[in-house]
Amino acid sequence: MSTLTLTPIGVVRSPLTERKAAPRQPDEGAPAATIHVDASVQDALHGIRAGDRIIVLTWLDRAARDVLRVHPRGRTDRPPLGVFATRSPDRPNPIGLHEVTVAAVRGLEIDVEAIEAIDGTPVLDIKAVLAPDPRDR
Amino acid sequence: MSTLTLTPIGVVRSPLTERKAAPRQPDEGAPAATIHVDASVQDALHGIRAGDRIIVLTWLDRAARDVLRVHPRGRTDRPPLGVFATRSPDRPNPIGLHEVTVAAVRGLEIDVEAIEAIDGTPVLDIKAVLAPDPRDR
Repeated sequence: MSTLTLTPIGVVRSPLTERKAAPRQPDEGAPAATIHVDASVQDALHGIRAGDRIIVLTWLDRAARDVLRVHPRGRTDRPPLGVFATRSPDRPNPIGLHEVTVAAVRGLEIDVEAIEAIDGTPVLDIKAVLAPDPRDR
Repeated sequence: MSTLTLTPIGVVRSPLTERKAAPRQPDEGAPAATIHVDASVQDALHGIRAGDRIIVLTWLDRAARDVLRVHPRGRTDRPPLGVFATRSPDRPNPIGLHEVTVAAVRGLEIDVEAIEAIDGTPVLDIKAVLAPDPRDR
């Protein structure tokens, strides 16, 4: 199939610096971090506020793109699953999905609560979490 | 920032053929559809079963990538928001996020219940929805 191209719209700045230290999910003790958004897309941030729940899509640039099966959560005592049946960072298109809470928005910086992304991880997209009443958005 | 490349891992086959006909969210009447997965990544499907909730990431190839603000839900009587504060398909990296239920898996084809994606939409990734007890995955 044809190749698609994307350009990061920002980067994660986090105290996490190694993949092995990254918790698998935010409820496992991930630290707060800041998303630095590129000035070229500043207008796209308009309306994001402290307290909002947002989905951050990242590019897991340290993942292995040639892995199709994994032992879930690294447990080799369990049978391997296809990566599409898991949340493994290793997958053909290593896009990370993080649902997080906005702590503050300061110009081009979005402070977020717990996010399991390593320092320097490129950010591809930010989306609203759908409200129970979608007419609110 | 540097450019990243991705290769679709499949394609959506749906009775929806026009963007304007696509419901904004699956609870608004989206039809069932089938994800045709590329044979090169068949191993990555292992473990996906009927009844599973999965997240499908797509490439919204008919979206406008130069749009940074939109009127939410097309309502021009409301002030525009930044696209990162919305679920608009128009955005710098037009990645679609669809949480859907698997109806059946048949070889390289995954039948899914309601999904708001147009016929021919490239599929980038499939992920498990996190179970309440993550040790289940």
